[in-house]
Amino acid sequence: PESRIEPQKMLVSGTHVQVDISPTIAKYYLEVPKASLGDMRPDIERICGCLKEKTSLTNLSISGESLVEVSDTLRNGDWCITAVIREEEELCRIEIGNTTERLYGVSIDVGTTKLAGYLVNLRTGETLSTSSIVNPQSSYGGDVATRISYSMKGKQQLQELQSLVIQGTNEMIEELCSKAKVDILEIYAMYFAGNTAMHHIFFGMNPKYIGLSPYIPAIGSPISMKAKDLGISINAGAYVNSLPNIAGFVGADAVADIITSRIHKSEELAMVIDIGTNTEIAIGNKDKIATCSTPAGPAIEGGHIKNGMKAETGAIEHLWIDPETLEPGYQVIGGGKPRGICGSAIIDAVAHFHKTGIIDNKGTIVENVNSKRIRKNESTGLLEYVIAWPDETASKKTIVINVMDVRQLLLAKAAIRTGVNVMLETIGVKAGDLKKLYLAGGFGTYVDPQSARSIGMYPNIPLNIVKFIGNSAGAGAKMALISSGIRDEALNILKEIEPK
Amino acid sequence: PESRIEPQKMLVSGTHVQVDISPTIAKYYLEVPKASLGDMRPDIERICGCLKEKTSLTNLSISGESLVEVSDTLRNGDWCITAVIREEEELCRIEIGNTTERLYGVSIDVGTTKLAGYLVNLRTGETLSTSSIVNPQSSYGGDVATRISYSMKGKQQLQELQSLVIQGTNEMIEELCSKAKVDILEIYAMYFAGNTAMHHIFFGMNPKYIGLSPYIPAIGSPISMKAKDLGISINAGAYVNSLPNIAGFVGADAVADIITSRIHKSEELAMVIDIGTNTEIAIGNKDKIATCSTPAGPAIEGGHIKNGMKAETGAIEHLWIDPETLEPGYQVIGGGKPRGICGSAIIDAVAHFHKTGIIDNKGTIVENVNSKRIRKNESTGLLEYVIAWPDETASKKTIVINVMDVRQLLLAKAAIRTGVNVMLETIGVKAGDLKKLYLAGGFGTYVDPQSARSIGMYPNIPLNIVKFIGNSAGAGAKMALISSGIRDEALNILKEIEPK
Repeated sequence: PESRIEPQKMLVSGTHVQVDISPTIAKYYLEVPKASLGDMRPDIERICGCLKEKTSLTNLSISGESLVEVSDTLRNGDWCITAVIREEEELCRIEIGNTTERLYGVSIDVGTTKLAGYLVNLRTGETLSTSSIVNPQSSYGGDVATRISYSMKGKQQLQELQSLVIQGTNEMIEELCSKAKVDILEIYAMYFAGNTAMHHIFFGMNPKYIGLSPYIPAIGSPISMKAKDLGISINAGAYVNSLPNIAGFVGADAVADIITSRIHKSEELAMVIDIGTNTEIAIGNKDKIATCSTPAGPAIEGGHIKNGMKAETGAIEHLWIDPETLEPGYQVIGGGKPRGICGSAIIDAVAHFHKTGIIDNKGTIVENVNSKRIRKNESTGLLEYVIAWPDETASKKTIVINVMDVRQLLLAKAAIRTGVNVMLETIGVKAGDLKKLYLAGGFGTYVDPQSARSIGMYPNIPLNIVKFIGNSAGAGAKMALISSGIRDEALNILKEIEPK
Repeated sequence: PESRIEPQKMLVSGTHVQVDISPTIAKYYLEVPKASLGDMRPDIERICGCLKEKTSLTNLSISGESLVEVSDTLRNGDWCITAVIREEEELCRIEIGNTTERLYGVSIDVGTTKLAGYLVNLRTGETLSTSSIVNPQSSYGGDVATRISYSMKGKQQLQELQSLVIQGTNEMIEELCSKAKVDILEIYAMYFAGNTAMHHIFFGMNPKYIGLSPYIPAIGSPISMKAKDLGISINAGAYVNSLPNIAGFVGADAVADIITSRIHKSEELAMVIDIGTNTEIAIGNKDKIATCSTPAGPAIEGGHIKNGMKAETGAIEHLWIDPETLEPGYQVIGGGKPRGICGSAIIDAVAHFHKTGIIDNKGTIVENVNSKRIRKNESTGLLEYVIAWPDETASKKTIVINVMDVRQLLLAKAAIRTGVNVMLETIGVKAGDLKKLYLAGGFGTYVDPQSARSIGMYPNIPLNIVKFIGNSAGAGAKMALISSGIRDEALNILKEIEPK
């Protein structure tokens, strides 16, 4: 019986795309003819002979790991083994017995602020566990520019940032595996998405020239690097692949956004905005796509905000203000008392501040509005709006949004809106021509599309064309992990796209 | 102007074979178009575009080293770089400026007792320096069998032996480079020859099953492993290749012997004996070759011999005994007083002992021969023949050959002769049918063919058909390093040979 995984159609979670199950890795169970004085073929040639008969795979290259383990594994497995083959070209490992039932991969989305990981069953395409952590590089600066500046100080600094993200990834993979009861050594493939700076630092490439005109990345094509060489602690025979980069500031995450939103296959004109510390924007259809990346800053993910936090249990994720009483209402992730406020609620807050006259057109909190919630902070002297009083919060400390927070958010908004406008111009269309707006974001909760429109993050388009596609960068990496069709699509997008 | 090395014909030293100069590595000097806002191609794509124009090389894979260095190297070299390409398929390094004039490789012959290394100019095929050291594994046993036994104790023991030979190789490479004024990082290719056990241990493979029936090696095909992964301290982009193994006990050294002696291209029937601790024997012609390996033991390289030493300055390399006076004469490597006696002179000694009646037919020293040189050692009680008295030696200590030394040498002789007889039988010929006998050996000095015949190491053949080809294993590895034609020949030999 053939042990190869048969291609099949399936739905990738978070999006509704049918993909072939055709990972870079395949396993074949082999009952290898025993060595004898009548059949003295060397061990590797014995296995390759078997593979040729069973699968017609020939001319395989042999990994160092396979060489070192082949003789003991054949004999310890009583000549019954599983050959692990990568890209139909390399014998990467040899396992004892029949392990074809277990074949796993990991995809990661390395954001400026957050890492997200997915453990996928490569036989079915099913996501078995997910995890996300704060990007450990955050202690070296909240945005892409400060990371690049730090890594420009020297090789050691670059290596520091690299080893932080590699270590974070390893911790995330451990958690993914422990949740799904998968051994970390059963992970045979890994796919990466992330913006160009995160991509360069992850793979140990100097991101300096991305940050300087003419903004040239080290490589556009997909990378394939041995996990072991990167320090990623999955199976020693495994490789880490990345989606391609489009340009200096438009990375593998933008490719993933396009793949997940499917705008490259769409008849209608569509836009995708992947909201985050670095925000990717793409506009187009099957004929033409323009894409850019804009440094919105960490405010949008709750960073550099007085009581900001990431979208996890205890975060206020949505917020509204009664126009009569100026009293707020809010919704907390996981219920319970709030610990802070995350990006989506900050957008809500600014939208409602404006609607209710708490801020003026310049974004300044209006001092003489009649509400006990508007006050001048005693220690900082900054005007602030109290969202929750001490007795209403988990920390027994007031949760506020102050005038600096509003400013941070408006800067982020302006960066995104500028990107949107430039992309519309580039492709030569008006906002009214858009038939679809995909809102994506890896930060875990959905932005209210009305609030976002109301603060001017994107033009005045009908809300019924807005669709949420979640962490589309992560979803794109996952799809590439699973499907060769998607990997080919990514390459074609790279060829066709017009970066700005 | 094209900077590629043009193929040319040349003679490889030690043999008289014409080979194409076509190493696995090539360098191309490129003046890469500068990045600008009008040409925003990523750095790798920029270089690959240039390579495609200049060389029509496409679809190159990109090494991790190239990825990490590309951006800085391009800019530090002011967009003038040298691309180092392996096997026309991988961009392995990117160097600043034009370094095409400097392209070097190393070949090594890892013998049971000795390592020999050659530093080769890969543009010309010229050998720039040679070096040889005692195999540092020797402290774990003088012959192949004891090495295999030790490595069978566990993974740690195998790794111990591996790291000894890797360390020895690194030291040898350092010496080769320092002699030839070549930077160790300018070494971009390395070729390995050695017997199967040395081969397995070098590459970290368990040699256990070579030593147990049915004597199966891990792999027959040539190996290609990243030098960095092996711990070989040449350029991080370089690979270590091995010649193929024929069978469990017939290794890459036998392939090298055949290649160097050219018996696989010969019309006439020829035999090659590569004399050493492990002795390889091959008999055949262009139609058919039979080959075997026989564990002669270290005596033949001066090991396990009371005053034995390797063939270096101070070693008695040739010796004769006056049949009238029973007084010896000898020749010392480098002139001067002797420090010990090496393999070739031990063979001479035994041949002359027998001719002059100092030993009988059983190999025992005859006590009642009338010579002051024949005596019983006071401390060991063993009969011995004094070759040099204390005042004649560098160490002021007597140099002798005792009855145990004679026994060791006769055991070695018997092992070799058995191999020769079996090979003659296998191929179905008689000694008289041989038209050529190639004597090879990596131990640095030539065996006297008359002495060797006289002790019965090989059958009674006319001495005028004997030809010395030196360290043919090392020469074969060197030829494979230089020439793709030779690499192809080695693969074909593997397919055609009949191992025993």
